[in-house]
Amino acid sequence: METIQPILWENGVLKLLDQRILPHSEDYISYQNCRDVADAITDMVVRGAPAIGITAAYGVALAVKKYTDVDVNRWQELIEDDLIYLSKARPTAINLNWAIDEMRKLFSQCNVLNPLPEVQALAIKIHQDDIDNNRIMGKLGADLIRESITGEIKPAVITHCNAGALATGGYGTALGVIRSAWEQGLISHVYADETRPWLQGARLTAWEMVKEEIPVSLLVDGAASHVIKTSQQTDAPIGWIIVGSDRIAANGDVANKIGTYGLAVNAKYHGLKVMVVAPTSTIDFKVASGNDIPIEERSNQEVLNFAGSKQSAKGALARNPAFDVTPAELVDAIVTEKGVVLKPTTDKMLNLK
Amino acid sequence: METIQPILWENGVLKLLDQRILPHSEDYISYQNCRDVADAITDMVVRGAPAIGITAAYGVALAVKKYTDVDVNRWQELIEDDLIYLSKARPTAINLNWAIDEMRKLFSQCNVLNPLPEVQALAIKIHQDDIDNNRIMGKLGADLIRESITGEIKPAVITHCNAGALATGGYGTALGVIRSAWEQGLISHVYADETRPWLQGARLTAWEMVKEEIPVSLLVDGAASHVIKTSQQTDAPIGWIIVGSDRIAANGDVANKIGTYGLAVNAKYHGLKVMVVAPTSTIDFKVASGNDIPIEERSNQEVLNFAGSKQSAKGALARNPAFDVTPAELVDAIVTEKGVVLKPTTDKMLNLK
Repeated sequence: METIQPILWENGVLKLLDQRILPHSEDYISYQNCRDVADAITDMVVRGAPAIGITAAYGVALAVKKYTDVDVNRWQELIEDDLIYLSKARPTAINLNWAIDEMRKLFSQCNVLNPLPEVQALAIKIHQDDIDNNRIMGKLGADLIRESITGEIKPAVITHCNAGALATGGYGTALGVIRSAWEQGLISHVYADETRPWLQGARLTAWEMVKEEIPVSLLVDGAASHVIKTSQQTDAPIGWIIVGSDRIAANGDVANKIGTYGLAVNAKYHGLKVMVVAPTSTIDFKVASGNDIPIEERSNQEVLNFAGSKQSAKGALARNPAFDVTPAELVDAIVTEKGVVLKPTTDKMLNLK
Repeated sequence: METIQPILWENGVLKLLDQRILPHSEDYISYQNCRDVADAITDMVVRGAPAIGITAAYGVALAVKKYTDVDVNRWQELIEDDLIYLSKARPTAINLNWAIDEMRKLFSQCNVLNPLPEVQALAIKIHQDDIDNNRIMGKLGADLIRESITGEIKPAVITHCNAGALATGGYGTALGVIRSAWEQGLISHVYADETRPWLQGARLTAWEMVKEEIPVSLLVDGAASHVIKTSQQTDAPIGWIIVGSDRIAANGDVANKIGTYGLAVNAKYHGLKVMVVAPTSTIDFKVASGNDIPIEERSNQEVLNFAGSKQSAKGALARNPAFDVTPAELVDAIVTEKGVVLKPTTDKMLNLK
């Protein structure tokens, strides 16, 4: 059993750990309606691409329950509006539509007059598979770190946003690798960008690391380059940036939380290695490159305000792209549950299909 | 007369616009004691290297007043402790010690039995010279932008922190160039990094731009790379990053607000030009390179908290370097009141001595 469980499924009820108020309160919100689940994704009660996918799978199960109760002969027709609504909850993380598609595939194969047991079982399987995949990726990523170590010095690592247990079914993608590497004594320290505007680093990543007693130092996002550079003169030089992803294009371009791209550019300038950790459900072979990945632009109030209070000058505009794209040329390794792709290209990525 | 006056000297009293509470309140705090002025610098009532220098000059004038009142024959001896205290108010901005040194030079040349008129006059001159120098730099920097324009497209610019009227005697260094370029119709838009942890961009730069109706869009610091890249496909591509400096080494390495270095690395990756705007009082010919510039590490509470409330996970550590160093190789132009140095090197910098 995982220590941190962002998503619970109990007796046909979905419970989401409200990530907007972590780490100050650890409260679960219960959901029994697919549209409410979609709103929870939009409002960031739950976030992180794999966690959004799992949540969507349970959302589909809730919709199946609702519409089979209404009319068991017409549920596949009645459910459509809710699934479309759910699919639009957030635009960038492809895991959302991947999970809905996986659930849809079952519709034509299951016992259509009593679909619920099979539908619920698949959602639970998607959830459990995600945790299992994280464990596999954790090991593969830690192996990469081990192979990069020459001599006595253990590298420190830097991560951006939260790609941890909270962003997944449990254990985490980037933080799964960090957990595994820490257990094996391969890394010396974790630096976490605070990750404005939502502070997923300060609130969520730091919380996960503190819970497991992995030493973590927060940085404002702008401090990463300086800390990377100056750490090279210490006995704990930052050697890797390790991040998750919300969507990976067929050529290996990586969409992830805003700030990842700038961090990756700085990582390459300083000779660091860049590791992206994501299940294959995050790969979208339908988009040729990162240029075709839709980037969510959220409300500018998230930038103009902070913790509910107006910080910025009245009258100022703001841009608030929630993600950016790191080109494959800046990525050293994409770690998936099906294996590692080094220096990704379209040809190499096809091996994961 | 400048619209924005961060520093006022009225009847022997120093008044500082409290920049910690801008833009929500525009309040001046009065000072009549040198040590209180030093604390105001430490606590960031006033910030920005040139403004710190001007404030320190007035602080010296206040100390001269105090100790000539105590004992006009011993004031040069009695004043020492206060000047040392003042000189330690913040470590990175060299303008602080530059101004104290300028004032000290006068001590041996003035009428020692009645130094106050000359001392006060010099502080006022340092203040006025700074404003005049900003106007000169504004013109020189705008000329560089004009020369970089080919065809119809006017560039947008991005700035970091606040190097505006508030950071100087008035008008500003980086924002002085932006003001001048905007007046001449040379730029299309201003992007301002919000600049965590103190939000000088969101609070101060945005406030200055809004006051003068220069269109400004705030970004979280991590969004700059994405916005730089995607702006290249628009009719207002970001063409320049324009920043101030807290200390420039003899070789042209530039210390400035944390985040500048990472932004400059990204600027070069995208082919932008990097302009640093600072008076020659910011150049420290005693330090050979940026490696020798002391970087202030402020309280980690500034990172762990936000707007007075705890945001981050309990138990997390934090690093809080207040400045970073951008190596000269990333700088296209250093603009001073004595002229412009392109692609700075130690030899070229000596022309400014």
